[in-house]
Amino acid sequence: MFKDTDFIKSCDVPGPTKEAIRAIILYKSDVSPTDKVVDCGCGTGGITCEFAKRAGEVISIDTNPEAIEITSKNLEKFGLGDNVKLINDDGANALKDIDGIDIAIVGGSGRQLENILDIVHEKLNSKGRIIITAILVDTKVEAINKLKSLGYNPQIMEVNVSNGRVLDRGILMISENPIAIMTAQKR
Amino acid sequence: MFKDTDFIKSCDVPGPTKEAIRAIILYKSDVSPTDKVVDCGCGTGGITCEFAKRAGEVISIDTNPEAIEITSKNLEKFGLGDNVKLINDDGANALKDIDGIDIAIVGGSGRQLENILDIVHEKLNSKGRIIITAILVDTKVEAINKLKSLGYNPQIMEVNVSNGRVLDRGILMISENPIAIMTAQKR
Amino acid sequence: MFKDTDFIKSCDVPGPTKEAIRAIILYKSDVSPTDKVVDCGCGTGGITCEFAKRAGEVISIDTNPEAIEITSKNLEKFGLGDNVKLINDDGANALKDIDGIDIAIVGGSGRQLENILDIVHEKLNSKGRIIITAILVDTKVEAINKLKSLGYNPQIMEVNVSNGRVLDRGILMISENPIAIMTAQKR
Amino acid sequence: MFKDTDFIKSCDVPGPTKEAIRAIILYKSDVSPTDKVVDCGCGTGGITCEFAKRAGEVISIDTNPEAIEITSKNLEKFGLGDNVKLINDDGANALKDIDGIDIAIVGGSGRQLENILDIVHEKLNSKGRIIITAILVDTKVEAINKLKSLGYNPQIMEVNVSNGRVLDRGILMISENPIAIMTAQKR
Repeated sequence: MFKDTDFIKSCDVPGPTKEAIRAIILYKSDVSPTDKVVDCGCGTGGITCEFAKRAGEVISIDTNPEAIEITSKNLEKFGLGDNVKLINDDGANALKDIDGIDIAIVGGSGRQLENILDIVHEKLNSKGRIIITAILVDTKVEAINKLKSLGYNPQIMEVNVSNGRVLDRGILMISENPIAIMTAQKR
Repeated sequence: MFKDTDFIKSCDVPGPTKEAIRAIILYKSDVSPTDKVVDCGCGTGGITCEFAKRAGEVISIDTNPEAIEITSKNLEKFGLGDNVKLINDDGANALKDIDGIDIAIVGGSGRQLENILDIVHEKLNSKGRIIITAILVDTKVEAINKLKSLGYNPQIMEVNVSNGRVLDRGILMISENPIAIMTAQKR
Repeated sequence: MFKDTDFIKSCDVPGPTKEAIRAIILYKSDVSPTDKVVDCGCGTGGITCEFAKRAGEVISIDTNPEAIEITSKNLEKFGLGDNVKLINDDGANALKDIDGIDIAIVGGSGRQLENILDIVHEKLNSKGRIIITAILVDTKVEAINKLKSLGYNPQIMEVNVSNGRVLDRGILMISENPIAIMTAQKR
Repeated sequence: MFKDTDFIKSCDVPGPTKEAIRAIILYKSDVSPTDKVVDCGCGTGGITCEFAKRAGEVISIDTNPEAIEITSKNLEKFGLGDNVKLINDDGANALKDIDGIDIAIVGGSGRQLENILDIVHEKLNSKGRIIITAILVDTKVEAINKLKSLGYNPQIMEVNVSNGRVLDRGILMISENPIAIMTAQKR
């Protein structure tokens, strides 16, 4: 397991996805060592590192070259990356050349979520899983509606985490911002 | 109503108590224009300003001279303060000279919560209300247990608030830290 | 103040709006004894009762005749109602005949939120306040976008409350469902 | 992965530990196929089933014979249990005969948490992990203080989850009760 503070960070790149959210995504993904995973909008690389340890193959995409660089550094820091391919492109473009996806994580979509989900749906294997994280309220509605329109039976979980600082005078709880996790599985 | 950002602040003084928490405290206090209110650990003065507008008399106490100064500045900023007495002392000490309390707000206790509640209990009018806010987990347990031992039927509500930033790309929710509000009413 | 359990309830009518939410709505409404308040989708009447105690005039609307009946019973139970007018109609229809609104609470909109907000906007006094509560994620986005399109600078707060059961073995926290409160003020 | 609704339940047995919490516990446990795991207060067996799939050996303890029975039924339902030993005893007693623990999960302690942690500490391997879940506020404080007194550097995370019901009229979020997860690792 990684601590949130283990990751190399950059001011201009969002993430890493926080520990509790990484844990829930991993659980919901039901990842196995033969799975082909796409991490769309990889940011700092938190999700990429987790799946690099557990999946067969990971393809991580981000439009921001700095995100690709930071993800690469984090993979290297943890001795990972042999099974990871990094692509500096926008999600929709990069996905067009990828087939046979078992798990698609969409953490960033640059306002192209519907387009990305259309392509993911096409490229996803039977029994494949889609996991979308959202920090914007609007993205929750957009993701659920798009998944419904693609014939999925989507689920949504919202997670509010607070972490304690164990001080001499007592336990002080500090909140993370709420994150929604939307999931769907192809029949 | 005040916005959180309306208050003059100082780095060395906690507060102001956030809007939703002030609203809930006001509601639970059932304050009326004849009530005598004590604000123990007034900090930035958020609670003091709210009760100055609605109660008959407010006595605000803080061990930190800077808290008294900031509270005074905030009262002045909002044209309040005629019915407010500010005391720079520790809560237990100051409370000894105060009688006939209708509403006691304990937001800071400097590790003397049990002692303060003993004195508040003695000085509280029949039907008087005690409201304790806590950011430490330990304080919740301590407050509830002490109120029980004093014969009260205490209640506790924990509040997690997030506020939206309405951006062009959508609504981003930002969390406040959790606050617990413990209340009890004298028979 | 009312406890949640003080209200007469009916299985077929939603509400009452929970204590913490009523407290925050009251605070944000900045209600004064001369204000004219509309409670659109009054349900069990929790909000109606609160404003009946504090405003000049309250007009409460619900399409469900049982909601009107329960609201009426709750007003009677608390010795309120002299300044309350109950209308059994859909919100948009009823609002057409109401002018000079100081505070509009929209807790239920029967899928007509945009339409209702158009009319509220037209009928709202200068400095008037709109407060919308939402239990659906979709309503949050719809309300914020509509308020923006009407020229408002809307705000959104999401509230997660848990209430303690003070048991012999300790304090057990029980969660309420999350509620969002969207607010806007006319210039 | 299991859904919460996959587990056989009984009215008189708490649990199963909810999906998000199981996911976070699994992640924090850093479980490997050679680990020896103790599940103290196994209840419905949610945690036991998860570790039965991933660990070398699982010993699950509950004072309630019905909990042992339900855990056994759930293991059977999922085709698990070959590496699981079920003990119907109180935690402190049962733990005395167990050595070389890699992961100790304490989800129920029957008011003997300190006693149980003393024994767990003694029986825990170097680098072993302790994970305590709490629904009572008091248990959070007790666990953190006891872990500190045993020389650990404990951590605490509180998790508030809500799950969406995707309805025709929109997404309705339903809250789970808050759960705290306290963790510590032996040097």
